[in-house]
Amino acid sequence: MNIALIGLGKMGYNLALNMLNKGYKINAFDLSHENVKKAKIAGANGVKSIKELIDMTPKKRIVFLLLPAGKAVDDTIEELLKYLEKGDIIIDSGNSHYKDSIRRYEYLKQKGISFLDCGISGGPEGALKGACLMVGGEEEVFKDCEKIFRDISVEEGVLYTGKSGSGHFVKMVHNGIEYGMMQSIAEGFEVMYKSDFDIDYEKVAHVFNHGSVVRSWLMELVESAFSKDKELDSIKGVMHSSGEGKWTVETALDLGVPAPVIALSVFMRYRSLEDDTFSGKIVAALRNEFGGHDVELK
Amino acid sequence: MNIALIGLGKMGYNLALNMLNKGYKINAFDLSHENVKKAKIAGANGVKSIKELIDMTPKKRIVFLLLPAGKAVDDTIEELLKYLEKGDIIIDSGNSHYKDSIRRYEYLKQKGISFLDCGISGGPEGALKGACLMVGGEEEVFKDCEKIFRDISVEEGVLYTGKSGSGHFVKMVHNGIEYGMMQSIAEGFEVMYKSDFDIDYEKVAHVFNHGSVVRSWLMELVESAFSKDKELDSIKGVMHSSGEGKWTVETALDLGVPAPVIALSVFMRYRSLEDDTFSGKIVAALRNEFGGHDVELK
Amino acid sequence: MNIALIGLGKMGYNLALNMLNKGYKINAFDLSHENVKKAKIAGANGVKSIKELIDMTPKKRIVFLLLPAGKAVDDTIEELLKYLEKGDIIIDSGNSHYKDSIRRYEYLKQKGISFLDCGISGGPEGALKGACLMVGGEEEVFKDCEKIFRDISVEEGVLYTGKSGSGHFVKMVHNGIEYGMMQSIAEGFEVMYKSDFDIDYEKVAHVFNHGSVVRSWLMELVESAFSKDKELDSIKGVMHSSGEGKWTVETALDLGVPAPVIALSVFMRYRSLEDDTFSGKIVAALRNEFGGHDVELK
Amino acid sequence: MNIALIGLGKMGYNLALNMLNKGYKINAFDLSHENVKKAKIAGANGVKSIKELIDMTPKKRIVFLLLPAGKAVDDTIEELLKYLEKGDIIIDSGNSHYKDSIRRYEYLKQKGISFLDCGISGGPEGALKGACLMVGGEEEVFKDCEKIFRDISVEEGVLYTGKSGSGHFVKMVHNGIEYGMMQSIAEGFEVMYKSDFDIDYEKVAHVFNHGSVVRSWLMELVESAFSKDKELDSIKGVMHSSGEGKWTVETALDLGVPAPVIALSVFMRYRSLEDDTFSGKIVAALRNEFGGHDVELK
Repeated sequence: MNIALIGLGKMGYNLALNMLNKGYKINAFDLSHENVKKAKIAGANGVKSIKELIDMTPKKRIVFLLLPAGKAVDDTIEELLKYLEKGDIIIDSGNSHYKDSIRRYEYLKQKGISFLDCGISGGPEGALKGACLMVGGEEEVFKDCEKIFRDISVEEGVLYTGKSGSGHFVKMVHNGIEYGMMQSIAEGFEVMYKSDFDIDYEKVAHVFNHGSVVRSWLMELVESAFSKDKELDSIKGVMHSSGEGKWTVETALDLGVPAPVIALSVFMRYRSLEDDTFSGKIVAALRNEFGGHDVELK
Repeated sequence: MNIALIGLGKMGYNLALNMLNKGYKINAFDLSHENVKKAKIAGANGVKSIKELIDMTPKKRIVFLLLPAGKAVDDTIEELLKYLEKGDIIIDSGNSHYKDSIRRYEYLKQKGISFLDCGISGGPEGALKGACLMVGGEEEVFKDCEKIFRDISVEEGVLYTGKSGSGHFVKMVHNGIEYGMMQSIAEGFEVMYKSDFDIDYEKVAHVFNHGSVVRSWLMELVESAFSKDKELDSIKGVMHSSGEGKWTVETALDLGVPAPVIALSVFMRYRSLEDDTFSGKIVAALRNEFGGHDVELK
Repeated sequence: MNIALIGLGKMGYNLALNMLNKGYKINAFDLSHENVKKAKIAGANGVKSIKELIDMTPKKRIVFLLLPAGKAVDDTIEELLKYLEKGDIIIDSGNSHYKDSIRRYEYLKQKGISFLDCGISGGPEGALKGACLMVGGEEEVFKDCEKIFRDISVEEGVLYTGKSGSGHFVKMVHNGIEYGMMQSIAEGFEVMYKSDFDIDYEKVAHVFNHGSVVRSWLMELVESAFSKDKELDSIKGVMHSSGEGKWTVETALDLGVPAPVIALSVFMRYRSLEDDTFSGKIVAALRNEFGGHDVELK
Repeated sequence: MNIALIGLGKMGYNLALNMLNKGYKINAFDLSHENVKKAKIAGANGVKSIKELIDMTPKKRIVFLLLPAGKAVDDTIEELLKYLEKGDIIIDSGNSHYKDSIRRYEYLKQKGISFLDCGISGGPEGALKGACLMVGGEEEVFKDCEKIFRDISVEEGVLYTGKSGSGHFVKMVHNGIEYGMMQSIAEGFEVMYKSDFDIDYEKVAHVFNHGSVVRSWLMELVESAFSKDKELDSIKGVMHSSGEGKWTVETALDLGVPAPVIALSVFMRYRSLEDDTFSGKIVAALRNEFGGHDVELK
């Protein structure tokens, strides 16, 4: 098995380091020369094109993709198809939509290329030191790659989730849960913040992490964040999102699952991106219309 | 029956005009001399104190209160108790909490004073031209006052809701429903606003009011608001609230009623009062902690 | 202009009656012979196939579709394409997804067939006595059909909403708002139901419809429903849904619109379809795990 | 310092064992003779009345209360006041409302009795093997008791949270967060359950606990629950609640904190207690009224 890796951003670069640390040889490519250079310094064999990447990697190849979801993955697969040979394996380790993964699996199967969808949790630190992997696809293909998966993850941190798409599906749900957990924590701390108690948030997070029901890695990260900035004065409460939370809600809508908490976690993120809202203007205008309540003028 | 009216704000003043238009004589008081003067010009007998108000009003008295909920009502009742006589009636026509109304009813009953809780809907315009009244308390007392209620409301716009507290209770629920309806409309129009269709909101509200399932007075007010300001550009989406929506949610929490839509309508109002949120900072900080996602600095 | 109508269900049949009442001649088809027979009795020219329908309708044809959203519409359009001639017009008057309507418009444009997407509100009664119509597509095509639209709708009940798709889009949003309004009303009445006041729901709905802020057609329907069944004892609280609410939430998710109230209205409907929930089992099991709280066994 | 303990339910009994294991002598009382007997067998000095309890415990006394929130706490404090002496300390270790704790603190202060509010997290297992404690009240009083707190908690599992009420306040918020986390997890697993993937929930929870962002004690308990009952077939999804979640929402409403996720977690619990809903009937009836959609009859 010979490893090629495409995509050397935060996740891909750290995953490359992780593999190198475990003794793997890696051929690596990224559209950014800068990123390739960094990977070379770290010990990977950085190349200048996908063609070169595949030329340098003898078969049987395992090609890890760590790319933004969507077009980048499709485009890269098209390019790869020019050079890959039957029996080679593509592992999409990004946050692709599970339905895209199923489509790609079926498409590649016709071409004789194997495909695994591999959700990674744990962030860049996990990618570097030991991730959590959820892998979907054909079981034999998974088994072919299992040793590498085990080597780059924490102990017990690999699950073969089943048929194609299930890896990214379980990862998507994981992120939906994560959205809800984060919003839960955030609301709780805002209740503390607005109370007239004089709360030390870092200490509260610390004690929550020692014996309480809500002890969790996220709560450890809360503690860490407050240790750096006592009341988070330096940052704005703008909550971006990258898709999986939204996809979880869409999937819940499709499957008939009431998912109010995950949905609200997404909507509160959306709300945080707006300074003012059209909906708010309408309610304000209505209150003025029927009740004569003053509106605030801009 | 002789009418005294305390509180000449938006609602009280318009209700006074309404009564005067119907041929009632009114003695009226407000802490603001300005408000009393306005009422005098309109034809009411404006007085300088509650003592004078009661002195000028021979029994059997009906004292309408149109005051802000809370302490103002209790204080006024205490002052009234110095001068009222057995058989007099106090009608709290403000937006008091129904539990306060029950408490006041029981307290006043011991003193021989009757008490009705009268929720008024329809806003200042309704108060002027014909309101919607929901009245709780003893049925005989309601009947004593029924003619006045009928005279100041739209046809069919009076309901005796039952025992003490029920008038303000039904009005509270009415407002909870109103919050939900307003937020529903507002969300819908924001979906239109952010779409790439070129929507004329006034025309949409207009057609919604002609034959559609959502035709309603609120939608007429939406139409009116957009007729004055095509995209509501001049106003801010700051949504204040005055208590009844919150009380409805609290009551739902007490009674075991799942009321997600009314609750969210209240919470989105709260959210609109904040420029930035502590909860948002926490989620942003967490995304940075585990994923290395950039936070936005202030 | 010669009218053909496909789909004689609740909406299509009533729309046919409406047109007949206004003096239009109609050729009508439905897959169900029963439905065609009913339409014949009502005065329409019922036919046995789409071929016959188009043969009987000289050009310039207007073909109204009143079909379930999805495949039925696409299949029917394919069949129609065999017989229609350049310049004919298809008006999709069902509840199609606005994106499907845009796709169909573009597809039909290539074939020389015009296409309007026409959202209808008002239910079967509106279809019969005067509906509310929101119509998207090319403006000249709309104008060609405007007289018919005006004839079958209530006065002021027709809006040309703009480019293709906008009619079904505005209708979708209308339904999203409707979901939120209905859930708001429902929550409010459940608060009354669980209180210890003895509420007459029909009377409350009645007074709400006379002068209150929440007066609306929906509240009139609440009154009507309670007039038939005092506490709705005979029916189950199972809330089905037909798509537009879900689509509104999906669109909100796509456009970055916080739409918590519409989303929750959809999710509470989903919840009502379940007797028991997997999510509930998990929470119950967790409470048992950490707190020793008893679970309820099946 | 001499320890008396009142309330030998799940939490109190385990806390007693914990103290005994750490070498403390305990006088213990419970209204249930059964519970007292169990405590005696475990090594506590079980007594028959609060009078006897205080008689047997020389001053300076620390009286731990582990009672249901509400009246039981007030009644017990009244009884205790007959026998306690100045300088004695009452520690309410139950889940009392923080506002009650502030009231009790002030009341007891006038009588010369100290009062701490001590929120305990970790469930019965934590109470037994090492809990997480959040303690509010006067700092000197906390320090007087700190050694005991440290002995019965996990390492780092004690926080002095500040002035009176803050211990129960922080514990309340902890529970609010817990509600939200549990509902987040539950929704996520229901999405998996309803998908057409063949998910092994225990294994998913297991991998989530190894390196993922959502690793947490709650997720470990999910794993444990599924290990006992693969699909939780044996239990019902009835989610009871004991107050703190509701209080967190009420506090959020009072403080102006948008807390949609915690609120929805509470409301979904309420919903799970109902077989059918009045709100659902209304929506179903409305759909029938305007759209002729069939209702389901009982």
